[in-house]
Amino acid sequence: MDATTVAATLETVRDTGPLVQCLTNIVVANWTANVLLATGLAPAMVDNPQEAGDFAAVASGVLINLGTPQVGTVAAMKAAVTAAGRTGTPWVLDPVAAGGLRWRTEVARDLLGITKPAIIRGNASEIAGLAGGAGGRGVDSTTTPEEVLDIARELATRHQCVVAVSGQVDHVVDAERTVTLANGHPWLTRVTGVGCALGALMAGFAGVVEDPLLAAAGATATLTVAADQAAATTTGLGSFAVALLDRLTHLTPEALATAVKVTAW
Amino acid sequence: MDATTVAATLETVRDTGPLVQCLTNIVVANWTANVLLATGLAPAMVDNPQEAGDFAAVASGVLINLGTPQVGTVAAMKAAVTAAGRTGTPWVLDPVAAGGLRWRTEVARDLLGITKPAIIRGNASEIAGLAGGAGGRGVDSTTTPEEVLDIARELATRHQCVVAVSGQVDHVVDAERTVTLANGHPWLTRVTGVGCALGALMAGFAGVVEDPLLAAAGATATLTVAADQAAATTTGLGSFAVALLDRLTHLTPEALATAVKVTAW
Amino acid sequence: MDATTVAATLETVRDTGPLVQCLTNIVVANWTANVLLATGLAPAMVDNPQEAGDFAAVASGVLINLGTPQVGTVAAMKAAVTAAGRTGTPWVLDPVAAGGLRWRTEVARDLLGITKPAIIRGNASEIAGLAGGAGGRGVDSTTTPEEVLDIARELATRHQCVVAVSGQVDHVVDAERTVTLANGHPWLTRVTGVGCALGALMAGFAGVVEDPLLAAAGATATLTVAADQAAATTTGLGSFAVALLDRLTHLTPEALATAVKVTAW
Repeated sequence: MDATTVAATLETVRDTGPLVQCLTNIVVANWTANVLLATGLAPAMVDNPQEAGDFAAVASGVLINLGTPQVGTVAAMKAAVTAAGRTGTPWVLDPVAAGGLRWRTEVARDLLGITKPAIIRGNASEIAGLAGGAGGRGVDSTTTPEEVLDIARELATRHQCVVAVSGQVDHVVDAERTVTLANGHPWLTRVTGVGCALGALMAGFAGVVEDPLLAAAGATATLTVAADQAAATTTGLGSFAVALLDRLTHLTPEALATAVKVTAW
Repeated sequence: MDATTVAATLETVRDTGPLVQCLTNIVVANWTANVLLATGLAPAMVDNPQEAGDFAAVASGVLINLGTPQVGTVAAMKAAVTAAGRTGTPWVLDPVAAGGLRWRTEVARDLLGITKPAIIRGNASEIAGLAGGAGGRGVDSTTTPEEVLDIARELATRHQCVVAVSGQVDHVVDAERTVTLANGHPWLTRVTGVGCALGALMAGFAGVVEDPLLAAAGATATLTVAADQAAATTTGLGSFAVALLDRLTHLTPEALATAVKVTAW
Repeated sequence: MDATTVAATLETVRDTGPLVQCLTNIVVANWTANVLLATGLAPAMVDNPQEAGDFAAVASGVLINLGTPQVGTVAAMKAAVTAAGRTGTPWVLDPVAAGGLRWRTEVARDLLGITKPAIIRGNASEIAGLAGGAGGRGVDSTTTPEEVLDIARELATRHQCVVAVSGQVDHVVDAERTVTLANGHPWLTRVTGVGCALGALMAGFAGVVEDPLLAAAGATATLTVAADQAAATTTGLGSFAVALLDRLTHLTPEALATAVKVTAW
């Protein structure tokens, strides 16, 4: 998996415009939709129990994000994951603050018990928390991605899926393979919902790229390289977020292939 | 209905600052409020069943947007529409993804059965879906506005209201009259919630402009002309959205009259 | 309480990065998180009844904002305030539109009956409405802060807390002391959620600054001085909001001490 292969996923996504059903939190719904639209995907936030299952059957990919779960939206998540399992729609689990908070950790495990996801995405402490560790304080990451790599591999093996761990260096693994990506800027942790939007991108990439490891790597590369470009021209967190959308609008597969720092083994 | 008449609605809105109750979705609530505030209106997102009816009785106009309905907010919508019918408060229906999703399509029809709206606003496939057609995939429009004109006219006649169909050319009709507006930029479909914010503007304009056809045309002109101006000075979707709010802050009725491309018959 | 003392609170907050649990409304959740992150705090929007109490026990401070209450989130607010009372976590009440809307006014009073808050924050009509007056139309302020000062003092005395009243001049009082802050720009009332974000900042400042009067003054100074700086370089509401986040990213305690217009007696 070299830089050109990773970058080519962006072209596939642009050519097909995958429809991403997002069952996500109230904090990042707007930002997530705008990141998807700027990149060339089509968002649809169908998150009620009456419709979520029907929609998951026609969506290209489904994102389940546990940032602000409520009884009604959790019921919708279960309906969406059940339908995704039946129809083969790839789904992504973003277990926000797993480990640190009991109810959502149980919800995450219940969802994993319904049908296997394409990708689980989180920071190091969320991945550790989901796997059974202590978890962090809220949404922060208190463990390094490197330390969590063994746990990620174990989780990927257990659920036959890809596990993506965000950090200064991003790690994407399945039962056998490992990809690291070393782009991105510290400010990505100081704009709310960048990780959440990355999960949504992964759901869309996985809808049109057959290998979920490549899909997760392609989505990560797209967002972090655009962030590098945005950080180079801005001086504060407000204009950085705006520039990130501008860069996603125009990022080409060629520029992505040149800029992405990817290693695979 | 000429350009000067359409543009004068913006002056009326600025002079009166109508209070717009928005029962809208979690994706666009922030953006909608900021579009209203930048244009000179006052937003209030009162969307619980306990208070929505009381507030609709004092609001200038009410927006009902079906982007992310839940059982509780749907109950609030019914209370708001019932109170709006009793007090004569104009209300706007934005049937997001109608036709494509069963529950919300039924909810939309239930709401129309309570009392007639001032305006129904959607893209071509939503209007077709609400009227009884097949509908689109999620929130995208798969039918052209021109093709849907007959359907819009039929819907307007059935509910004795105005129907506004967004597209490359926007169409606003009632049982007899037709207005077309030809401003706007393709990027308007790539910032989430522009159509949703337009519905909220229409609810405010309808609160202070007697003719709902003129109100819908005035709101459409305001948003699309500001978008033309914003697109002329920006190079990506993030800065385009920011510039749109900047342009709405300063758009004058005179500049609007000069720039709006309106035809009425 | 002089300018240097007020400005020093920003340094304390930057050094400690308090974790702020926000039970807030769907309109401003994203903006609130980004204001907190830009300033140097850590947001976590845990607003379901299953987890809100547990999280309030570990958070630095808790914000309760009544902008869009629903039955489920109100249950979460009660759990969070109950836990905050038990563990001594300072909590801030932002009674959005209190007085004008019956249910949320009752909810606000119920919450105040559970345990005393550190700070109550609102505009003049919300403070008057909470205290028993008629309240305003929705979220607007129809009474001047000066007129409401007696009411604020009475409310502060009744609940043994600080009451902060936003306006052209901001007033922060407890039973005996008064602080006025005279920074800020009229555009702060035309970006949605600035007051809501101020409530969240106050919850964070109160988590690490012992005197809640000083915490409320420090948060107010930080946001309004950054707004002055942002307004000086922007020409519309979209870019103003972006610049406000940029300024919060870089505002130093020294610049804050120089710019803040504070009077205390």
